[in-house]
Amino acid sequence: MSKLPNVGTTIFSIMSALAAQHKAINLSQGFPDFDCDDLLKKLVTEAMEDGYNQYAPMPGIMPLREVIAQKIENLYGQQVNPDTEITITPGGTYAIFTAIATCIGPGDEVIIFEPAYDSYIPNVRVNGGVPVMIPLSYPDYSIDWNLVRSKITPRTKMIMINTPHNPTASIISREDLEELQKIVTEHKLLVLSDEVYEHLIYDGEAHLSILRYPELLRNSFVTFSFGKVFHNTGWKMGYCVAPAHLMAEYRKVHQYLCFSVNTPMQYGLSRYLQTPEHYLSLPGFYQQKRDYFLELMKDTRFTPLHSKGSYFQLMRYDRISNEGDKDFATRITKEFGVASIPVSAFYENGKDDHVLRFCFAKKKETLEQAAERLRKI
Amino acid sequence: MSKLPNVGTTIFSIMSALAAQHKAINLSQGFPDFDCDDLLKKLVTEAMEDGYNQYAPMPGIMPLREVIAQKIENLYGQQVNPDTEITITPGGTYAIFTAIATCIGPGDEVIIFEPAYDSYIPNVRVNGGVPVMIPLSYPDYSIDWNLVRSKITPRTKMIMINTPHNPTASIISREDLEELQKIVTEHKLLVLSDEVYEHLIYDGEAHLSILRYPELLRNSFVTFSFGKVFHNTGWKMGYCVAPAHLMAEYRKVHQYLCFSVNTPMQYGLSRYLQTPEHYLSLPGFYQQKRDYFLELMKDTRFTPLHSKGSYFQLMRYDRISNEGDKDFATRITKEFGVASIPVSAFYENGKDDHVLRFCFAKKKETLEQAAERLRKI
Ligand SMILES: CSCCC(=O)C(=O)O
Ligand SMILES: CSCCC(=O)C(=O)O
Repeated sequence: MSKLPNVGTTIFSIMSALAAQHKAINLSQGFPDFDCDDLLKKLVTEAMEDGYNQYAPMPGIMPLREVIAQKIENLYGQQVNPDTEITITPGGTYAIFTAIATCIGPGDEVIIFEPAYDSYIPNVRVNGGVPVMIPLSYPDYSIDWNLVRSKITPRTKMIMINTPHNPTASIISREDLEELQKIVTEHKLLVLSDEVYEHLIYDGEAHLSILRYPELLRNSFVTFSFGKVFHNTGWKMGYCVAPAHLMAEYRKVHQYLCFSVNTPMQYGLSRYLQTPEHYLSLPGFYQQKRDYFLELMKDTRFTPLHSKGSYFQLMRYDRISNEGDKDFATRITKEFGVASIPVSAFYENGKDDHVLRFCFAKKKETLEQAAERLRKI
Repeated sequence: MSKLPNVGTTIFSIMSALAAQHKAINLSQGFPDFDCDDLLKKLVTEAMEDGYNQYAPMPGIMPLREVIAQKIENLYGQQVNPDTEITITPGGTYAIFTAIATCIGPGDEVIIFEPAYDSYIPNVRVNGGVPVMIPLSYPDYSIDWNLVRSKITPRTKMIMINTPHNPTASIISREDLEELQKIVTEHKLLVLSDEVYEHLIYDGEAHLSILRYPELLRNSFVTFSFGKVFHNTGWKMGYCVAPAHLMAEYRKVHQYLCFSVNTPMQYGLSRYLQTPEHYLSLPGFYQQKRDYFLELMKDTRFTPLHSKGSYFQLMRYDRISNEGDKDFATRITKEFGVASIPVSAFYENGKDDHVLRFCFAKKKETLEQAAERLRKI
C-alpha cells in the first residue's frame, strides 16, 4: 500500500545522524555551520514586532515579489511580472515538488539527469509520473544531448535541469541551453530548472539562469532558495518563477497545499533584498571558501574534480581505496571523524565512481580541522 | 492540460481582496486581527539569535515533538511516541495535503462531508483520487451515518472528518466516533481528522480528538495547527500525529516535499508550549469572543446557528433577504462594509442554505464596529 515503496531515509539525514553519533565534522548535508546575517534576523524580529504575523497573500507578499523581480531584471535583464509570475514557497524543495505536482500525472515521463538531488525521482513517482534517468558523463558531468534525444517518447512531458548542479558542482553551458531550446520546441516539453545555488558560481562565470532566455522561459518553471544563499537553510524560504499561464496552474496546487508562506520571514527578506550587495557579494564569499578548502586538501590523497558552483567539492579517492563510496564515506566518518556524501546515493542504480561530496559552506576552522583529519587517511 | 481545471481563486482570497477594496471590516478569512503573544515572538527572536537557523531534522526538532507528546498525554490521556508518531509541518493545510498524498492514488475514493474546508476536494483530485461528497444535515450539521454506509464501495480508502468544524462550528459527538469506528473496522478504511481548531471549543465541551481513541488512532492521521490557536496564522506551523506505520509513509512524502520546517519558529514554539496555561486558556479566551459577538448581533436581523467551536459563527439571513449567499455576502461587503464567507462556497455543487460565516477571532472594537454596521441592514 506504500506509494513510495523504495524510499528510505534521505542520505542527508543518514549521514548527518552518523556524524552526530561519531562526533564527526559534518561536511555531508549542504548547510553552513556559520550563522546568517544579524541584520536579516533583526528584520524578521522587527516584522514580528510590527505585527506581521497573520496569513500572507497566497502568492507571497507583494514587496518581496517586487524586489525579486528587480533582482531578476538587474541580474538577468528579464522583466518578470511579480503579480502573476512569482510565487513564494516554503523552500526550494517544495518549489520543485509543486512544479511537478502541477504538470505531471500518471504515465507522464520526466527526464532527470543523474547524479540527481534525491527528491526529484520520488517527486515524479508520487505524482504517478515515470522518471527517465540519463547519466551525466563522468568525470566532467556534461550532458550528452544525443542520449537525451534518444530517450524522448510521446509521453515525455518535462526535462529537469539543475545549475549550479548538486552534487557535482558543474554548471550548464550556453550550448547546453541551445540544445535544450531545440528539443523543448520540437517536442513541446516543459522545463523545470532548479537554480537554488544561484549566486554560488565561481571563477567569474555568469549564472546561466533560464530567466535570461525568454524563449526557454516560456515553457519553464525556475526554482530558487533563500536559505541556500543567505546561510539560513532552516528558514525554509524559496520561490518559483514561471510565465503567467504556467504560474496560474502552479498556484492552483500551491493554494491548497500550503496556501501561503511565513509572513514575518517574507517581510524580513523583502527588506534585506533591497540592498543588492547582499547577493552580489555571494560569489566572492563562497569562492574564497572553495579555494581555501582546495588549498587545505592539497596535502591529502584525495583528487578534486572541478567545482564551478554550489556549496560542494567532489573528491575522488582512488589513490586511497577501492571500497564502494558508501562504505568508504561511512568508514571515514567513523574512523577519521569527517562526514561526506557518497555520490552513488544520487543515482537510482547506485552507479559508483568512487567520488565523495564535501560541503565547504563551513567556517575556516571547520575546514582546517576537517582537512587535518583527512590528511591522516 | 490542467490537473485542476475547476479550481479558481479560493473564496478566502476573493473575500479578503473584496474587503480590502471596499475598506470593509474583514470577518471573512479565518485569522485574528489581534497579535500573538509578545513572549512567543521573543522566543523566536532568541532562537534566531542563538543561531538556530539551519535545517531542522526532517520530522521536526525533538524538543517540540516532546512537548507536543506531553500535551497529548495531558489532554487526551494518550501516549504518543515523539520519535515515530509526530511530524512538524508548515501549517495545517500542508499537514492535510501530505496525508492525502501519502495514501491516495488514482481511483481511490475519499469520503468528505460538506460543507468542507476548500482544500480537501482539490487535494484528493490532484492525487488522482475521487472525492465522494456527503452533505451534513442542515441546520444542525450532523452526520447521517446511514448515508455514509450507502456511499462506501470497494474503492473507498479514507474518511475525512473535521472537529471543531470549519465552516459550521459544529463538533463531533461520541456517538459519531462510535459509528466511525465501526465503519472503519468493517471496511478497513483510513481516517484523516482535521483538528486545527483544537482548544477552540465552548460551553465546557471536551474536544473529542481522535487521539483519545486508540482503536481509531490506529488507522488515522490527525492534523493540527499552531497558527490557528496561538493567533499567528502567518507563521504557517502545524503538525501531524499518526501511528508509526502510517507516519513512516507520511514522512516518505514529507521528506521530499518540504524536507523540514522553519527551525527558529520550532524552537520558539517548543519553549512556549512548556507552559500549559498558554493552551489551557484558549477555550475561555475564544468563548468570550463568541459570546460577545452573539450579544452584539442580537439587535440585527441575522439569526445565529449554534457555534460549538472554531473561530466561526454562522448566521442565517432569511429575515433580511432571499438573495443567494454569494450575492448577499458581496452586497453587504460593498454596501455595509462587512465581509463574511458565503457557506455555499464550501459545497462543490454550491448548495445554498442562505447562511453566512463570520469570523469572531477579532478585537472587541472590530466586532463592535462590525455589529454596528450589520444593524443597519
Ligand atoms: C534538504 S536537505 C539536503 C541539503 C542539500 O541540499 C544537500 O545536502 O544536497
Ligand atoms: C488558509 S486561508 C483560510 C483560512 C481559513 O481556514 C478559513 O477562513 O476557513
